[in-house]
Amino acid sequence: MYTLYIANRNYSSWSLRPWVLMRALGIPFDEEQRFFGPGSNREAFSLFSPSGQVPCLHDGDGTVVWDSLAIVEYLAERHAGVWPAEAAARAWARCAAAEMHGGFSALRNTCPMSCGIKVRLHELSPALAQDIARIDALWGEGLARFGGPFLAGDRFSAADAFFAPVAFRVNSYGLSLSAPAAAYAARLLALPAMGEWLAGALAETQREAGHEADVAAVGSVVEDLRAKI
Amino acid sequence: MYTLYIANRNYSSWSLRPWVLMRALGIPFDEEQRFFGPGSNREAFSLFSPSGQVPCLHDGDGTVVWDSLAIVEYLAERHAGVWPAEAAARAWARCAAAEMHGGFSALRNTCPMSCGIKVRLHELSPALAQDIARIDALWGEGLARFGGPFLAGDRFSAADAFFAPVAFRVNSYGLSLSAPAAAYAARLLALPAMGEWLAGALAETQREAGHEADVAAVGSVVEDLRAKI
Repeated sequence: MYTLYIANRNYSSWSLRPWVLMRALGIPFDEEQRFFGPGSNREAFSLFSPSGQVPCLHDGDGTVVWDSLAIVEYLAERHAGVWPAEAAARAWARCAAAEMHGGFSALRNTCPMSCGIKVRLHELSPALAQDIARIDALWGEGLARFGGPFLAGDRFSAADAFFAPVAFRVNSYGLSLSAPAAAYAARLLALPAMGEWLAGALAETQREAGHEADVAAVGSVVEDLRAKI
Repeated sequence: MYTLYIANRNYSSWSLRPWVLMRALGIPFDEEQRFFGPGSNREAFSLFSPSGQVPCLHDGDGTVVWDSLAIVEYLAERHAGVWPAEAAARAWARCAAAEMHGGFSALRNTCPMSCGIKVRLHELSPALAQDIARIDALWGEGLARFGGPFLAGDRFSAADAFFAPVAFRVNSYGLSLSAPAAAYAARLLALPAMGEWLAGALAETQREAGHEADVAAVGSVVEDLRAKI
């Protein structure tokens, strides 16, 4: 049996990726949630994760898998459907997920995930515009090449899981995408697993000053659907 | 037959990772080198890489694999030895490589790879010190747990390839590590494939102003072994 350690649903884009993958694929797991605190998260999270970061997967045999993309590959060795079965689609899906894992720093820094709010950005910087254009092109390429409705074909895979936080960001920040990419983001948001995550995020009353400040630095909050604290 | 697109050996840490893996494992490939230019690299590199970034692997059947970690997994499906054969070591190695792929931003930004120079840093920021401490702990854990001399056991794997640029950075910036980690960095630098890469880097006369400025911003160049331009 797996135990998946995650942080706040509202903020933790990295936690969402393996969580939504396991949920969408029906891989059973226990969840352990630890909230971002006022102190050092790295220290607190080191109790269960060697890097001091979330997510972290513990397997029943004692194996600890402490990175989101490594968790995906660990699961792919044990469960069908994590990656597409066809080799070309699988290579493409891995590139897409890995590009998200290591890149898009402007999108990540300028539009931090905060599922429960809507934000009007102060500006659309050239770096952010470039990241959004690349997301648009990448999604468009996958949908066209593999036929949709998911990025690498007709089944939800780890590539989709890696862009799940971007769907929340598109919604929160009103990011403008071409029609196929916007429709794909809407499809992700409509998945039952994404609805379950969002409901959990909205119910959370744990706020973390650093994440709130990151949002305040880039835009104005125009709507906050989260539970009152 | 594979074709691997890389950029300047002196600067491109991402290019080094799959290159040194393929060289160390004896996987044959043709190399196509494109130098960082004064204009938009993203535009120039888009001619062969969908993300506009290096490295990018082209397989003979037309498959294009445009991310370093996805290249590793693509090769792992086709060649033995990319990852350790034993499951626990493989899970650990994937975590280590993926942590490097997505993290260590202070190390990457403060100590940009420039193989052919030695630099005295203006300061050791807390964020950089934390990244170095994490590298030290991670390397120490792997070496102790799997018995060395490489990170996940007795054979060079993709985990080592992912930290190859860190070995050059340790050398260039005189980063201080505990004895086992320092010895491991020295072992990486002593590999024939690393020597071949470094010789190529030193012979390059192509300089790129942005990369040179990044180094100048963080420290003083105290030695430059690169070919005169």
